Amino acid sequence: MQLGFVGLGRMGLNMVRRMQQAGIDCVVFDTNLDARKEAASYGATAAESIQDLAEKLQAPRAVWLMLPTAVVDAVLDQVVPLLSPGDTVIDGGNSHYVEDLRRAEALGKHQLMYVDVGVSGGVWGRERGYCQMIGGPEKAYQRLEPAFAALAPGVDAAPRSEGRTGEPSSAEKGYLYCGPNGAGHFVKMVHNGIEYGLMAAYAEGFNVLKHANAGKQKRTADAETSPLENPERYQYDFPLGEVAELWRRGSVIGSWLLDLTAAELGRDPSLKAYNGRVSDSGEGRWTAQAAIDEGVPVPVLAAALFGRFTSQGNELYANQVMSAMRHAFGGHNEKTGNKE
Amino acid sequence: MQLGFVGLGRMGLNMVRRMQQAGIDCVVFDTNLDARKEAASYGATAAESIQDLAEKLQAPRAVWLMLPTAVVDAVLDQVVPLLSPGDTVIDGGNSHYVEDLRRAEALGKHQLMYVDVGVSGGVWGRERGYCQMIGGPEKAYQRLEPAFAALAPGVDAAPRSEGRTGEPSSAEKGYLYCGPNGAGHFVKMVHNGIEYGLMAAYAEGFNVLKHANAGKQKRTADAETSPLENPERYQYDFPLGEVAELWRRGSVIGSWLLDLTAAELGRDPSLKAYNGRVSDSGEGRWTAQAAIDEGVPVPVLAAALFGRFTSQGNELYANQVMSAMRHAFGGHNEKTGNKE
Amino acid sequence: MQLGFVGLGRMGLNMVRRMQQAGIDCVVFDTNLDARKEAASYGATAAESIQDLAEKLQAPRAVWLMLPTAVVDAVLDQVVPLLSPGDTVIDGGNSHYVEDLRRAEALGKHQLMYVDVGVSGGVWGRERGYCQMIGGPEKAYQRLEPAFAALAPGVDAAPRSEGRTGEPSSAEKGYLYCGPNGAGHFVKMVHNGIEYGLMAAYAEGFNVLKHANAGKQKRTADAETSPLENPERYQYDFPLGEVAELWRRGSVIGSWLLDLTAAELGRDPSLKAYNGRVSDSGEGRWTAQAAIDEGVPVPVLAAALFGRFTSQGNELYANQVMSAMRHAFGGHNEKTGNKE
Amino acid sequence: MQLGFVGLGRMGLNMVRRMQQAGIDCVVFDTNLDARKEAASYGATAAESIQDLAEKLQAPRAVWLMLPTAVVDAVLDQVVPLLSPGDTVIDGGNSHYVEDLRRAEALGKHQLMYVDVGVSGGVWGRERGYCQMIGGPEKAYQRLEPAFAALAPGVDAAPRSEGRTGEPSSAEKGYLYCGPNGAGHFVKMVHNGIEYGLMAAYAEGFNVLKHANAGKQKRTADAETSPLENPERYQYDFPLGEVAELWRRGSVIGSWLLDLTAAELGRDPSLKAYNGRVSDSGEGRWTAQAAIDEGVPVPVLAAALFGRFTSQGNELYANQVMSAMRHAFGGHNEKTGNKE
Repeated sequence: MQLGFVGLGRMGLNMVRRMQQAGIDCVVFDTNLDARKEAASYGATAAESIQDLAEKLQAPRAVWLMLPTAVVDAVLDQVVPLLSPGDTVIDGGNSHYVEDLRRAEALGKHQLMYVDVGVSGGVWGRERGYCQMIGGPEKAYQRLEPAFAALAPGVDAAPRSEGRTGEPSSAEKGYLYCGPNGAGHFVKMVHNGIEYGLMAAYAEGFNVLKHANAGKQKRTADAETSPLENPERYQYDFPLGEVAELWRRGSVIGSWLLDLTAAELGRDPSLKAYNGRVSDSGEGRWTAQAAIDEGVPVPVLAAALFGRFTSQGNELYANQVMSAMRHAFGGHNEKTGNKE
Repeated sequence: MQLGFVGLGRMGLNMVRRMQQAGIDCVVFDTNLDARKEAASYGATAAESIQDLAEKLQAPRAVWLMLPTAVVDAVLDQVVPLLSPGDTVIDGGNSHYVEDLRRAEALGKHQLMYVDVGVSGGVWGRERGYCQMIGGPEKAYQRLEPAFAALAPGVDAAPRSEGRTGEPSSAEKGYLYCGPNGAGHFVKMVHNGIEYGLMAAYAEGFNVLKHANAGKQKRTADAETSPLENPERYQYDFPLGEVAELWRRGSVIGSWLLDLTAAELGRDPSLKAYNGRVSDSGEGRWTAQAAIDEGVPVPVLAAALFGRFTSQGNELYANQVMSAMRHAFGGHNEKTGNKE
Repeated sequence: MQLGFVGLGRMGLNMVRRMQQAGIDCVVFDTNLDARKEAASYGATAAESIQDLAEKLQAPRAVWLMLPTAVVDAVLDQVVPLLSPGDTVIDGGNSHYVEDLRRAEALGKHQLMYVDVGVSGGVWGRERGYCQMIGGPEKAYQRLEPAFAALAPGVDAAPRSEGRTGEPSSAEKGYLYCGPNGAGHFVKMVHNGIEYGLMAAYAEGFNVLKHANAGKQKRTADAETSPLENPERYQYDFPLGEVAELWRRGSVIGSWLLDLTAAELGRDPSLKAYNGRVSDSGEGRWTAQAAIDEGVPVPVLAAALFGRFTSQGNELYANQVMSAMRHAFGGHNEKTGNKE
Repeated sequence: MQLGFVGLGRMGLNMVRRMQQAGIDCVVFDTNLDARKEAASYGATAAESIQDLAEKLQAPRAVWLMLPTAVVDAVLDQVVPLLSPGDTVIDGGNSHYVEDLRRAEALGKHQLMYVDVGVSGGVWGRERGYCQMIGGPEKAYQRLEPAFAALAPGVDAAPRSEGRTGEPSSAEKGYLYCGPNGAGHFVKMVHNGIEYGLMAAYAEGFNVLKHANAGKQKRTADAETSPLENPERYQYDFPLGEVAELWRRGSVIGSWLLDLTAAELGRDPSLKAYNGRVSDSGEGRWTAQAAIDEGVPVPVLAAALFGRFTSQGNELYANQVMSAMRHAFGGHNEKTGNKE
């Protein structure tokens, strides 16, 4: 099988390497020459340009884009005129599924098929394989299945679920045809929405443990500071790195995210290297917005998202409004000094 | 009617003044001599000590404490031995109602009655009158009713509700017997819990309006910054002071808190004098904890409370945990620089 | 001044009546003949059709639409061809401000001006006047100002804010030019988002009071029921109607919504006539989605919105997923019987 | 090593079995004769009574209680008089850590040591081993370590974390001395609080996927129903069982809870056997209350908890209050019919 591949960032390179190892012939391009060379060292064919890439592929072509969301449309504008009816374009980046609907329609006018693939695995994918959520025409999915299988972790990556027997389903191997266009990125979007919620649940829990020594702290005894009624209940200094490690074995909350957390907390439980600002990259927002469109309550996922917004400083004016009210009705003075 | 009154802070002084004007004879004490003098200037009898105060009152005595929560028990230790069976102590401060249960039981052993009064009104009470939520023995309530009536705003403070006719109830005058001990502070606690929710609702709304010019801001175009898909939809610079003023007339969300907000935003819509740290003083916490005991969901009140905790900086470690995870699974670097 | 007015529902009729009383000549249309007759009884000129309405208006025309969101575009399709360059269309309904941007652009191609007006006041507006948030070309706003002033509550509807002197601003009279197209409905959208939060804050607070007798309830003593550790703390039966009434005078949380609540709870504190399903009508959703676009945290407004979704039953599957997990890891059986 | 063990429910029996297999001599008691017989079949010594159990143990004795929280104090009343200075009592149940503080103090007056152990593992513990969080006197912990090690999953239950070398720590084997009394149950409490958050994050995500066909549903077109603006975006019928299975391999959100979910959804993605009522058993509540005491924001954990309360029906009155308001200000009628 032959596949065009545009976008050789760290993740793209790892994907190409994994496919080459599985016998998929990749014809690759990136504006970065070094990246092309590295891909070539894995056995891929480096093209000089997108046009060159299109020419090096035999029809029906398949071109996998692994690009920052913001440049996908620009690259599509270049790629589409070089393709022929029956060819396929795959967007493996983090596009909003609503963009997929638009692009699929546009490409359809050229008799091109569009496939959206949500890819999870991050920097660990090279080693673990990539979990792939796929949307688009079923025919295109079938043609591309060897590539998906090559990228996927494979059935041995986890014990089979109770009740599963016989030939493993593709989901058990780590890739899934989720439905028509947008379905792949929709499922990936929700995957990331869940990820935000899981991360926040652990983070809040560790924060409660961290502050379990609150009874040892001196508290200002004024009307502006809520008293701690039972300081004797908050006298603990927990070994947070060991707690995270502990929960990895035999507990209900074991997970891959906990594995990573245990390694980080094992190195430095104070986490002082991190400054407390947590970015968000779109999918958490889109998940909440889709839930609202659907009328589905997502209090946990939204709270996790809002926590990130707040870490970015965007709650400031709301707090100022509250301080202004407190000043107005109670004479409370939250004017001077700086936020701790 | 005669009433002992201990605690002549700004609020206590205003209350004494209001009662003296209504013909209640107050015998007052505070360790602050100037405050005693000011109370005397309103016609109150200043006592030299708590013992002096107890002696100046005729049995059955009633002693109203208007003190910071943290010193109530210490003052009670002084007051109780000076009283006689049948006397009454009133706690008009912001005590947790659970403390009332304990104190009422302790005073009961001395045949003393204990009355808990939640007082709302803040610095505006002198002018508007005080809304009072009262718990304790019904007999004590009845004996003290003239004092409650003197402090209350009176029925004219608001139009009568549709369907209310005849002699106004005490609630319509601004004071209410809510039930046995603790009932007064319980209702006041929930009052403040609601207050937190209302304040946050307005604050979040104004913050959404404030950021309605997001489409005019330059956004960093990297994988760490979520893109704004439709910047043309966020091009507004709203006159926030005028908006607050507008909503005071004819809208569904008019309120006293909005009146105060309009005055503050009218002076400086940027609110730059406030630093964004919002204190909490106990009742919001107790409301959430009572709700949890009851099994009652309070997502809005709790979100408002957590917003204050976050404004105080206590979310930091949770965010560091999330950054550590993001670093571990995706190589995201949230280590350098400072939180904006 | 002359104004065309299409859409004579209860609210439209009340608005026409208020304008006629202020000397604005309304030429009105509605497919409902009775409504046209009622408008005529207020002095308005009833048109036989939209075409007739357009003919009866002198250029430059102004046509105010007061229609369900879903039909605005269809009526615009009829109205636009009948208008001339320089005419104005006003949408006074509950449109999403994003629709305003689209419509303003479309009408602009015909040299027509488009004005979006968010109107608050509901069934009480006839008596109280209408609070109006206005977006569009400033020139159109100025031409229409007499109509806005006629509909507004007027400055006497509330005491002037501290610091306001001289000629009242339009906001003080109850209408405000908020900015270019969409600005009116944007501000109205946020107004309603705040309204959701305020309503939920009161509702949660009353629910905590309602369940303050939890200690009197028998609790099943099994591993599936969380124990109430201190039942003696939850022995209160609060008079909820009186509490609501009480808070109207002198408290920090007085508001128009509380006034309404007090009247309702005064009639029947059990509220047994209501079934617990709370609708949402769009603005709360749009507010949350705009906040997410802006990156602004709105935990309180979103919690209020999600509470409504849950009251509509849309949380069901999430709960089933959690029960399935609990069954799987702990053998908990949440399969039989029905939800209480 | 010899250990007394009281409470032979399913979990207690499995724990005894695991310890017997590791060479710990258990002297056991339960009022259920069959359970005693089963324990004896694993090699344990069945006592006829608690007194008999105490007599069969050599000093210094250690008695492990594995009992429903509600009966721990009653059994302690029986056990304590039978013990001698230097003996130890272990509470391995789900007690609130605040109870541990009280009990440890009470036992200390008899020169008895008290150890609190939070045990995770549920019905799977027999196979996987038990994750144990331990609080109390360090001396007691050291004496009991063989029992903890016997119950724990062992280091092979998970790959060692990056950076861990040499002799594994006890946490890596699955048990941890967390600190003085209460520390064990505190950490277990937070563990369960996190568990609630994780479960809700997955549940909400699957619910968003479930409703991704919202655009196919007919919606009532009235003012009480919020319109779906882009129905074409919600046309997906996702294979939820396959999606859960997919995420188990190579994705960021793999976890043991997801493993269980995949098995459940694999059997019946509709989950129709579950009725939607989700119990809570105390730890989630205590976690939120501890966080509030500490001033630590836990929006995600609290939202998960409140979701359970709502599934239990306790939000009803709040919704009725909101419907009453909507009726009062807008004439909305949410009175008839039943909640869907």
